[in-house]
Amino acid sequence: MKVIVVGAAGDVGKAACEELGQRHDIIRVGRSSGDIQVDLSDRAAIDQMYTHVGQVDAVVSTAGDVHFAPLSEHTEETLMLGFRQKVMGQINLVLAGLDRVTEGGSFTLTSGVLDRDPIPMGVGAAAANGALGGFVVGAAIEIPRQLRINVVSPGLLEASVPRYGDWFPGHTPVSSTRVGRAFAKSVDGKITGQVIVVE
Amino acid sequence: MKVIVVGAAGDVGKAACEELGQRHDIIRVGRSSGDIQVDLSDRAAIDQMYTHVGQVDAVVSTAGDVHFAPLSEHTEETLMLGFRQKVMGQINLVLAGLDRVTEGGSFTLTSGVLDRDPIPMGVGAAAANGALGGFVVGAAIEIPRQLRINVVSPGLLEASVPRYGDWFPGHTPVSSTRVGRAFAKSVDGKITGQVIVVE
Repeated sequence: MKVIVVGAAGDVGKAACEELGQRHDIIRVGRSSGDIQVDLSDRAAIDQMYTHVGQVDAVVSTAGDVHFAPLSEHTEETLMLGFRQKVMGQINLVLAGLDRVTEGGSFTLTSGVLDRDPIPMGVGAAAANGALGGFVVGAAIEIPRQLRINVVSPGLLEASVPRYGDWFPGHTPVSSTRVGRAFAKSVDGKITGQVIVVE
Repeated sequence: MKVIVVGAAGDVGKAACEELGQRHDIIRVGRSSGDIQVDLSDRAAIDQMYTHVGQVDAVVSTAGDVHFAPLSEHTEETLMLGFRQKVMGQINLVLAGLDRVTEGGSFTLTSGVLDRDPIPMGVGAAAANGALGGFVVGAAIEIPRQLRINVVSPGLLEASVPRYGDWFPGHTPVSSTRVGRAFAKSVDGKITGQVIVVE
């Protein structure tokens, strides 16, 4: 298969590439790195990416920022940032790919643990994660051409512990190997409309 | 208790008012009806509402629009409408009320069934509902002054069947009485960070 991985340079993206690269051709996409650079808030740039890549069998997205802050310091702007970037950025990839990805192919998005196991300052991520879960459930029942769509919801990655571990008291980190397998479950399997939890 | 109910004229709002009005003073708020008119996308108008109402013990929101359309007809704009209106509108009520609602008081938002039991054309609602569920989980652990926050997630209301029933094939409608009780569970009870499912 030919698989686009957006956000390939991040910890989750690397986990996905490591697993999927064992048997698929990976096109690595990033905001400022990888084989192709794309800003997911720019629909025209996403269309260009699909045109440039040509026929593709699976799209994986591990991209998207949210703002971390205590609830009482959040504003409409800081919360909308997560909806615009982490949620709509990934959804834009789906909308633009609906008539391009190979029939029977798949979209696999990435959310995270914070809407089921919250941490202080994580409310923006929790809301964005919940939105992505709802989106794949709603989208899967009417996505055209037998396409499938899932979202991987990983806990804190072991690889991310040096940078973020202190923000996640008591969370048990998950290995990149297990996170990678979750992407395989979506890309190489047949499930759709699922939140694939890795914890 | 003094309880603000935003969206009081809708089917869910009426259910909340019917139940809570048995023992609380209700201030009915709507976009164009009720005791006070407020546009939830206007933070200044929400601040004004709180100032006008004075000390309040609970805030209930049943307000918020989403765009219904097949996945393949959705655009960034039509999906963002749900995040802006149904999600941020309700969240704005919370952000503006954090230092105003009585200590130990509550916020109760409203989502819906479509992120767990999807229907065609419901993907925008599914995403918005998921976002609200994630938000209350994340917000509850750091909301100040012992405030509480929950979201009621009702199935299709019996009262809404004449207008929307055909869109929900096979769904078992829920009574307004049961939906009202879900708001009581949040307002009069002690739970927090919960998605209160009514189905």
